[in-house]
Amino acid sequence: MLLLRRCRRLTAGLSPAQAQRARPAASPAPSWCGVGGGSRSSSGGGGEDGQTSQDPRWRPALAGLLAGTGAVLAYGLHHHKAERSASPMEPASPMEPALPVFSQAEVSKHGSLEAGVWVTFRGGVYDITDFVAMHPGGDKILLAAGGALEPFWALYAVHSQDHVLDILSEYKVGELDPEDQARQRAVEPSDPYSGDPQRHPALRVNSAKPFNAEPPPALLGDSYITPSAIFFKRNHLPVPRVDPASYRLRVEGLPRPLSLSLADLKSRFPKHTVTATLQCAGNRRSEMNAVKQVKGLNWGIAAISNATWSGALLRDVLREGGWGPEAAAAAGGGGARHVQFEGLDADASGTTYGASIPLNKALSEEGDVLLAYQMNGEDLPADHGYPLRVVVPGTVGARNVKWLGTVTVSREESASHWQQNDYKGFSPGTDWDTVDFRSAPAIQELPVQSAITQPADGAVLERDADGGVTVRGYAWSGGGRAVVRVDVSLDGGKTWQVARLREGEGDGEGEEEQGEATPPPPPPPLPGRAWAWKLWEVVAPLPPGEQQVEIVCKAVDDSYNMQPDSVAPIWNLRGVLSNAWHRVRVTVRED
Amino acid sequence: MLLLRRCRRLTAGLSPAQAQRARPAASPAPSWCGVGGGSRSSSGGGGEDGQTSQDPRWRPALAGLLAGTGAVLAYGLHHHKAERSASPMEPASPMEPALPVFSQAEVSKHGSLEAGVWVTFRGGVYDITDFVAMHPGGDKILLAAGGALEPFWALYAVHSQDHVLDILSEYKVGELDPEDQARQRAVEPSDPYSGDPQRHPALRVNSAKPFNAEPPPALLGDSYITPSAIFFKRNHLPVPRVDPASYRLRVEGLPRPLSLSLADLKSRFPKHTVTATLQCAGNRRSEMNAVKQVKGLNWGIAAISNATWSGALLRDVLREGGWGPEAAAAAGGGGARHVQFEGLDADASGTTYGASIPLNKALSEEGDVLLAYQMNGEDLPADHGYPLRVVVPGTVGARNVKWLGTVTVSREESASHWQQNDYKGFSPGTDWDTVDFRSAPAIQELPVQSAITQPADGAVLERDADGGVTVRGYAWSGGGRAVVRVDVSLDGGKTWQVARLREGEGDGEGEEEQGEATPPPPPPPLPGRAWAWKLWEVVAPLPPGEQQVEIVCKAVDDSYNMQPDSVAPIWNLRGVLSNAWHRVRVTVRED
Repeated sequence: MLLLRRCRRLTAGLSPAQAQRARPAASPAPSWCGVGGGSRSSSGGGGEDGQTSQDPRWRPALAGLLAGTGAVLAYGLHHHKAERSASPMEPASPMEPALPVFSQAEVSKHGSLEAGVWVTFRGGVYDITDFVAMHPGGDKILLAAGGALEPFWALYAVHSQDHVLDILSEYKVGELDPEDQARQRAVEPSDPYSGDPQRHPALRVNSAKPFNAEPPPALLGDSYITPSAIFFKRNHLPVPRVDPASYRLRVEGLPRPLSLSLADLKSRFPKHTVTATLQCAGNRRSEMNAVKQVKGLNWGIAAISNATWSGALLRDVLREGGWGPEAAAAAGGGGARHVQFEGLDADASGTTYGASIPLNKALSEEGDVLLAYQMNGEDLPADHGYPLRVVVPGTVGARNVKWLGTVTVSREESASHWQQNDYKGFSPGTDWDTVDFRSAPAIQELPVQSAITQPADGAVLERDADGGVTVRGYAWSGGGRAVVRVDVSLDGGKTWQVARLREGEGDGEGEEEQGEATPPPPPPPLPGRAWAWKLWEVVAPLPPGEQQVEIVCKAVDDSYNMQPDSVAPIWNLRGVLSNAWHRVRVTVRED
Repeated sequence: MLLLRRCRRLTAGLSPAQAQRARPAASPAPSWCGVGGGSRSSSGGGGEDGQTSQDPRWRPALAGLLAGTGAVLAYGLHHHKAERSASPMEPASPMEPALPVFSQAEVSKHGSLEAGVWVTFRGGVYDITDFVAMHPGGDKILLAAGGALEPFWALYAVHSQDHVLDILSEYKVGELDPEDQARQRAVEPSDPYSGDPQRHPALRVNSAKPFNAEPPPALLGDSYITPSAIFFKRNHLPVPRVDPASYRLRVEGLPRPLSLSLADLKSRFPKHTVTATLQCAGNRRSEMNAVKQVKGLNWGIAAISNATWSGALLRDVLREGGWGPEAAAAAGGGGARHVQFEGLDADASGTTYGASIPLNKALSEEGDVLLAYQMNGEDLPADHGYPLRVVVPGTVGARNVKWLGTVTVSREESASHWQQNDYKGFSPGTDWDTVDFRSAPAIQELPVQSAITQPADGAVLERDADGGVTVRGYAWSGGGRAVVRVDVSLDGGKTWQVARLREGEGDGEGEEEQGEATPPPPPPPLPGRAWAWKLWEVVAPLPPGEQQVEIVCKAVDDSYNMQPDSVAPIWNLRGVLSNAWHRVRVTVRED
C-alpha cells in the first residue's frame, strides 16, 4: 500500500526532462549494454594504462540496501506470480520463438510511464511498465527507463539474486540490436577530454568538459556511503592519464624532500582509513541563481557525497620529510603556515590545478588529512584522482586536490587562481565591480548544511488515512563538527519537529516498519572529528486541508551553528556557501 | 558639531528606568563616595582575607581611550574657559564661602537632563548639566548621573589629568553629607551573599543573589579589552571566600594526582597569556523572551566581554600529572574523554558548581586552556574566580569554572546539573513536557555572534547634511574561529554593506576624524585560535525619507558560518544560543 503510493508519487515528481538529463550529455545512445556480466569496456580512460579502477564495472557497493521488510515482501509476492507463469529467465534458446530486435534508439523512446518503460539487460529488451508500481525500490527504477539496467543494479546489491532475474524474465519483449551493443562512444583524439572515463548514466551533468555532475537526490539520500560511480564529480580540467608504475609524489619545503612511488606510500606509512563527506563550495548554487544570477555551475543539492578513503596520513609523510610540531616551533612561528597541493591535471598552457590548506590542519594528530589511494575500498577511480589525491576531512572539496603531483610546505598560500581569486565568500552587497578577492579568506572549513532528498521539489503527494509524509535528507558540517539535530517543518518554518539521525551504514536503512526497533546509534566520533554526514528521516503529518505545502529542513552542528533562514542575505557573486534552509514545495492531492 | 549631536541622541536614548538600573539593586543609595582617592572600602569580600583584587579600586584600565582628536579638541576648548574663570579645583578652603551640604538622596534625584545632572566626586557635589553637551565621551557621562564619578573615571584613564579636574571644579555646587560618605551597604551576616564583593554601579543587574549583571552596551563597545569592573558577571551561587595561602588545587584522574598551591602554579609552570572573549550561553536571551517566555535570566546583548587572562596551561599541569597524548592513546581510546572542573562555590546543601570539557581540547597544543590566576594583568577579581579559574577559550562561559577547586580527568562528562540538565540547545518545537536533556549535547563551542552596541534600540537620531550614522558593535565566534566579515543593513536586511573590523586595542579606537589614517591591522591569529572578539564600525547613510529605520548586523566566521535571520526558528525553552541577526530600531528626525 505504502509502496504503491510511493511509486505513483514518483511518477509525478520525475519529469521527462529530468529523465533525459540522467544520461551523459556526450553520449545520447548509451553503450552500457555490453558492460555487465564480467565483460569490460575498452572505451574511455580504462584499460590501456592499467587504471583498472576507471572501468565502469559498477561493482556491488551497497550490500543490504533495500533489504528491509517491505522489499522482501514485495519480491516474495512477485516470486509466486513468476512461478505460476513458469518462465524463468535464461538465454533465449532455439526452442523458443524468436523475439523481435530493437535498436537502442527505439528503446530510448520508452522512457516514461506514459510512453512505456523499457530497459535493456545483457542484450535483452524488457517492457517493465507493469512492474514499476511493484518495484520495492520505488521511483528509482525510472532512472533506468529507456536505457540499461546494469549500472543501477550494480549500485543495489539486492538485485544480485536469482529470483530478481526470474521476475525480469517475465517482461522480455525483444533483443537489442547487436550493432548497438557493440557501439562505443565517439572519440575525437584531438579533444583534450577524449581520455576522460566513462560515467554512470544516472548522473546529472552540469558541464561535460570539464566533467561536472551530481547524482539524483533520491539516489544520494539512499546510502550512507555514496557509491563511487555516482559520487559527485567536480573536475576543473581534463582527467589526466597517470601511469601508476612511473608515478612519483614530490614532497617539498621540508628538511628532507621526498619522492615517493605508490609502493612507497603503501608500504612505508601506516594505512589510515577515514569516512569523510566532500562538498563542493558551489553545492546548491542553483538556489542563489534563483535570487540573482551568479557565476558558476548550476549545482542542485547533490554536489556532496560521502565515501571511505584510505591512504597514508599526510602528517606521517611530512614527518618522514623531517617536518613536525617541533620543526614548526623551531621556525619561530613566522615560517611555514601552509601546505600547497598541485595536481597533474593541466590546461593547454600547462597550468595545473592547485590549492592549499593551513599547515596546522595537516600536522594535527586530529586532522586526519590523507594522501588517499583508495576510495570505498578500491583504487581511486579516474574521476576521483587516480592514483593519488589528498583528502582533507571537514574542508571544502576544492582543497582535496586530485591526481596529486606535488606537496609543498610553504610560508604562503597556494598562488593558484582557485585559492586566490575563487572559492571565497563575499557580502551580498559586493559585485564584480567592487570585489577585492584579497579581502576574504579562502574557503577551508564549510558551514553547517542540510537538504531534503525526498520528496522532490514539485512532487505531488497523495494524502492517505494517516496523513503522513516521509521526509529524508542529509546533514553535514565542516571542520569535524558533528550534526546534532535536524529540524523539519511542514508549514514553511512556523513549526518544527526533530528528525531521526542515521549515524552510519547500519542505522535506520530499513523501511518505516522497523521504526521503533532500531538499535541505538554507534558511539559518536571524537569531538572535532565528525567528518561524515548524517542521513536523517522524519515521518510527519501533512497539514490538514493544505494543498500546497512547503517542507523545510535546517541542521544544527555541535557548535550549535545553525543554517541561515533565507538565500538572499547570503547571496554572493560566486554563488558559493549556499546553505540556507532547504525548502521543497509539494502539492497534496486528496485520496 | 558631531559630538554635540551625539550627546543629544544619547539623551533621548537613555530612559530614567535605564539610569535607575545602572545601580546595584541591593543598594539604592550608592556608597562609592569614599572609594576614590586611594581609600579602601572594608565592606564586601575584600580586605579581610587578603583578596586585594576584590577591592573596587577602579584602576585605570583603558589608557588612551578617548584620546582621539575630538576629545583633545573638546577638552582644549573647555580649558580656555576654565582659565578665564580662574577657579581651579582644590579642597574647599576656609577662605571660600561654605557650600551647601546635600544628602545622597538629594543628589540621586538629579539623574537626567530634565532633572539636572548632578554627580559626586571626593565628597563634592557637582551640577554638570551644562557640561553634558561638551563631554567628549558623549552619552556615557549620563551613566554617572545622580551618583559618583570615581568608578567611571577609573575606567577611562583620560580623566587622570589636571585639566579635567579644572573643568569639574567649575561645576561644584555643594558638599556631600559626611554620613552618606561613610554609609556602607547593609550587610546581613546570615545572608550567604553577605560576602559578595562590591560591584561597579554601571552594571545592569539581572539578578542580585546570585549576582548576574552586564555592562551597558555603549560601554562594552568602547574598549577592545573590557575593564574587569564592568566585565559581565555570571554567578550561580554566592562568591566563596578563598584564603590564597591555604588554597590548593587538586588534580585527579591522573597517573600522579597533584595538589598545587598558588605558588606552585605560578612557579612550576610557564605563565601563558591569552586574550579571550567569554560569552554566557544566555546572552541576548531577552530577544527570545520577546518571542515566547523562556526560563532564565533576561540578558541583553552584553553577557559577553573580552579580557586578557594569564596562568598555567591546563595541558602543562595534566602532563605534570603524567597525562598526555601518549597516555591517552595507551588508554585505547575507550578511557578518559573529559576533564571535569569543580568550583568552590556551593549552595546551602554543599552542592558545588561543576562542568566539564572534552579532553582533547584540554590536551591540544592549540587549545590554550588556562588555569588562570590573572585577569587583565592583575589577580582575578572575586567575581571572576579568585584565586584560580579555568579559562577555556572559544567555549561557552559556563565551562570556564571559577573558584576552581578540583580538576578531574574522567571517562564521563561532569554529572553536575549545569552540564547534564542545563546549557543545552533544543528545537523550537520542544517544550518542558517533552524535553529529554540526554538528547542534546552540552554546549561547548558557541556559534557565530554579533550585536550592535551603538546606536541603542529606540534611539532618536537626527539627520544631518551628510545623512550618515555611525554603527558600532562586536562580533565573535566560538571554537577559535575568527570573524572575517560583518554585514550591516540600514533597511532591515534588504541591502548590506561591510563594516570595518577593529582587530585589537590599537586599531581604530580613535574618533571618525582619524578614519583613513588607521594603520593596517595586526596579523591574524593562527587558524583555529582566534579567541578574542572583533569590534566593528561602519558609517552608513540613513535611507532618505525614512523616519523609522531598522539597523541590522550579521557576522561571518572563517568557517563561513552565518547568523540565522530570525529569532523564532532558533527559540528554545532555555533561551540559550540566541544569535539571530541583531536588530535595532531607531527614529530619524529631520534637522
